[in-house]
Amino acid sequence: MDDLFYMDQALELAREAAAEGEVPVGCVIVRRGQIVGRGRNRRETAKTALGHGEIEAIADACKTLGGWRLWDCTLYVTLEPCPMCAGAIVNARIPKVIYGAADAKAGCCGSVCDLFSMGFNHHPQVVRGVREAECAALLKEFFLRLREDLRSRPKWKPPQEIDYEG
Amino acid sequence: MDDLFYMDQALELAREAAAEGEVPVGCVIVRRGQIVGRGRNRRETAKTALGHGEIEAIADACKTLGGWRLWDCTLYVTLEPCPMCAGAIVNARIPKVIYGAADAKAGCCGSVCDLFSMGFNHHPQVVRGVREAECAALLKEFFLRLREDLRSRPKWKPPQEIDYEG
Repeated sequence: MDDLFYMDQALELAREAAAEGEVPVGCVIVRRGQIVGRGRNRRETAKTALGHGEIEAIADACKTLGGWRLWDCTLYVTLEPCPMCAGAIVNARIPKVIYGAADAKAGCCGSVCDLFSMGFNHHPQVVRGVREAECAALLKEFFLRLREDLRSRPKWKPPQEIDYEG
Repeated sequence: MDDLFYMDQALELAREAAAEGEVPVGCVIVRRGQIVGRGRNRRETAKTALGHGEIEAIADACKTLGGWRLWDCTLYVTLEPCPMCAGAIVNARIPKVIYGAADAKAGCCGSVCDLFSMGFNHHPQVVRGVREAECAALLKEFFLRLREDLRSRPKWKPPQEIDYEG
């Protein structure tokens, strides 16, 4: 029940990202029933490779709690974490990760690899598929619209050859 | 020759970290002969789990170059990247990584795992062991001093039992 509530908060952030033209991924970090960190994808608008929802939420939670160890926190994210975000979760010692949709291309909780079961010094517990349909639908709709936009743009034409001799 | 020069710049940043009581790791990002990003470990002073040298250098380079794709850059770092930083390198599309010392506990370029050879959409080239002895010595000296400091601190004693009945 609580998991659905917090994933809805993450979905709300994902919708904010979509409205700004960003891939819709949202994330919240919860400690003892309170949201202590929020983040969403803003790679294009912030022009940084680090602009994933989990990174923003971890930075926010560290600021809120005043330290880099997020020991008794749970991270909710609409899309399976990529290697950077899974690594940040390990570094922040977050004990539990709950995600919505799987990411076949970059997911590190079982899709491309299972980073949390490797020989690092921290092994977060994972819950998959909370609000999976909603999380996946948001992404699908975003990419469908993006492809339509790209199709409707004028096609690139090669520059006309200029005959400097003539 | 150039690789040694840029690794020396990263070592200089690692020494700055040590002087502030941080694990001495430094990083520079170079594009066409120019340093476009600098970073060093500041996890304790900045109180964030994201405070690794590579993350700071990638953020700096994205800002300098005005975009999230660091296509024609080389990243120099004194210690083998952890999963978060290796993932950030993949996300930033950095084609080449050069590191000094290996990290048996968290290294993702062969030590704990080889993230760049997994099924992600980008596979950076790696050069190992540049200024390895200097990079490793800096870390060894730091942890030796840290252990000495911890030993010289007063030992924790259990609180005395109070007899409420008496």
